[in-house]
Amino acid sequence: MRGFGPNEFAGRTQKLQTAMAAEGLDAILVTTEADLRYITGFLTRFWESPSRAWYVIVPATGKPIAVIPSIGAALMGTTWVEDIRTWRAPDLEDDGVGLLSATLDEVLGGSGGRVGLPAGHESNLRMPLNDFWALQALRPERKFISDGNIVRYARSVKTPAEVEKIRAACAVAGRAFDRMGEVLTEGLRKEDYYRGFQRLCLEEGADFVPYIAGGHGEWGYGDIIAPADDSQITAGDVVMLDTGVLLDGYFSDFDRNFSFGKAPRGEVQNAFATLVDAVDAGFAAAKPGARASDLFAAMDQVVTGGKNSADSGRFGHGLGLQLTEWPSLIPDEHTVLVEGMVLTLEPSIVTTADGQLLVHEENIVITQAGAEFLSPRAPRDFKVF
Amino acid sequence: MRGFGPNEFAGRTQKLQTAMAAEGLDAILVTTEADLRYITGFLTRFWESPSRAWYVIVPATGKPIAVIPSIGAALMGTTWVEDIRTWRAPDLEDDGVGLLSATLDEVLGGSGGRVGLPAGHESNLRMPLNDFWALQALRPERKFISDGNIVRYARSVKTPAEVEKIRAACAVAGRAFDRMGEVLTEGLRKEDYYRGFQRLCLEEGADFVPYIAGGHGEWGYGDIIAPADDSQITAGDVVMLDTGVLLDGYFSDFDRNFSFGKAPRGEVQNAFATLVDAVDAGFAAAKPGARASDLFAAMDQVVTGGKNSADSGRFGHGLGLQLTEWPSLIPDEHTVLVEGMVLTLEPSIVTTADGQLLVHEENIVITQAGAEFLSPRAPRDFKVF
Repeated sequence: MRGFGPNEFAGRTQKLQTAMAAEGLDAILVTTEADLRYITGFLTRFWESPSRAWYVIVPATGKPIAVIPSIGAALMGTTWVEDIRTWRAPDLEDDGVGLLSATLDEVLGGSGGRVGLPAGHESNLRMPLNDFWALQALRPERKFISDGNIVRYARSVKTPAEVEKIRAACAVAGRAFDRMGEVLTEGLRKEDYYRGFQRLCLEEGADFVPYIAGGHGEWGYGDIIAPADDSQITAGDVVMLDTGVLLDGYFSDFDRNFSFGKAPRGEVQNAFATLVDAVDAGFAAAKPGARASDLFAAMDQVVTGGKNSADSGRFGHGLGLQLTEWPSLIPDEHTVLVEGMVLTLEPSIVTTADGQLLVHEENIVITQAGAEFLSPRAPRDFKVF
Repeated sequence: MRGFGPNEFAGRTQKLQTAMAAEGLDAILVTTEADLRYITGFLTRFWESPSRAWYVIVPATGKPIAVIPSIGAALMGTTWVEDIRTWRAPDLEDDGVGLLSATLDEVLGGSGGRVGLPAGHESNLRMPLNDFWALQALRPERKFISDGNIVRYARSVKTPAEVEKIRAACAVAGRAFDRMGEVLTEGLRKEDYYRGFQRLCLEEGADFVPYIAGGHGEWGYGDIIAPADDSQITAGDVVMLDTGVLLDGYFSDFDRNFSFGKAPRGEVQNAFATLVDAVDAGFAAAKPGARASDLFAAMDQVVTGGKNSADSGRFGHGLGLQLTEWPSLIPDEHTVLVEGMVLTLEPSIVTTADGQLLVHEENIVITQAGAEFLSPRAPRDFKVF
């Protein structure tokens, strides 16, 4: 089944409202794709268009209210949201700001109130700054402040229904990775193995493949976020593909390393085995009550002996409505893990003095007993097609 | 050839700096994928990850300066940017804000200065609000203000090299649309024709297919931004697919309407022919010196006799680094078109009292002589496979 029933969204809203009361917020205003979808179920690729702003208000009690461009009214009407207010956007005079401000007046019972905005790390305000400044100027006595990371935290703890969607997305990517031997050939260009892998993901059931990065080389790769290009692979190269596959609005995010024709050099195979061991160590540390930093430390112990030298900045992160979500697996992140958090374990290891590296990634969910893999675990032996 | 030579970026920067001088700005700070890429050429799908902020400063003179997470240093090092300053992100204490502020001090020769931010319609600030507030608090005497739409305007006028990239993206989508007969079959689910069309786009050379929307039905469709679902098509249905195909970082954005097995009802065929006539009228009005509103009026005259009732809010928009860009083709947008602007012509028409509609879209570039189609023009006769 696509989507969720209304109870799912009612539960999410209730969770937010309980936290809002504790934080002393009268309402929360969200503007981004992921936050709107978390609260409403509003799912579309139309966020690729930056031309229109979208607003959802979570009041202290009751259902969320959507203040959106009329082009989205039909789709929002299919969600559990009942109170949908629209304007014809773009409107060069007032692109929904007046309607939004008036709706806040109604929700807050006056011109004041404390309105929380997602404002911490990994957030952004998806509305024009001029419009935000105008919204503030319309009601100088209203406080627009940080939501204290309430939305971020709520989103980080997945419901069982959300976990199943991520598991399904992981299965799609896993089946596509299993078929990479159909794509990899001597001399193949990077742009073509990017395309070939996307095609496999679609054939295996992905709705969209928004994220691909990768690299190839004798010793690994110098960059793990690089775009498609015409560089060609050679037999014995390590080829890494990292993907974010979307299925019903939820991401998988894991990579695989391959070679074809012949195995990569022994040093690279050993480095890869170390990464698999590091993932195992991170997995063993993953349980309710452990801190994000504990998982980093467990993996870093295996990779560097505890030197904290993660070149990419971290060894994993949350995952769900977005490719990457809070929290980060870094030494300073002491957030306590709870059942339902979905994380990537993503250690990297440097293989050469000039910074070639390998990265390996799996997806897990924190369970009552510890953790469970959502991605089909890669074997410790390097995969050669 | 992928990307552009350094002269392209030097020219873009010079154009911005000339406008900055006129606007009285000492620097511009950009934070979004499209703005950073316009100035630097930094191309990656890594923007799917919201976890890290990215900053580029355009000084009054000289080359842009990148202040970015270390994970992007290698890739930014391949661009024309020379001054690349990095921090290891995410950093929970200071996620680049101190480095950014100190870099602005250096660029501006002190703790003051007027820093322009893209702040108008279609823009947003892609950094956490808490970090923006901290950046302001670090230098209370520095003014962070709207850039007066300088970046938006510069981006709207494409260079010949940019136009060729959009033309190539349009050709990819056109070839994929020509093959839709390979995909459409009786009973096919929407999620499967979305997937099938993406696969065709990849086979025809797309790097990525970030945007798909569509619909199907006897009289058209009620929604033009809806996601994949399991609704099934029937012979004689109109099937609409609207796509944004990416090739080397540039978008096409046009749709096609099809049926298969048998032609749709006569009213629908006539409505479609009206939309093609409207596009022709918009195209005829498109030339340097015409206003965006003139193109709207020309199309609206054909569709509604001049009633200004565009259900989707507009009849087209800019296109390039993003699926939709400024300006909008609406009655109030009086921006004067100049050579190099790339636009979509996208009239829609209501076919039933309950709001079923058809939409048809082509892509054009404004030339010295008038305009030129970038998308392979759809015939006026309804396409039946």
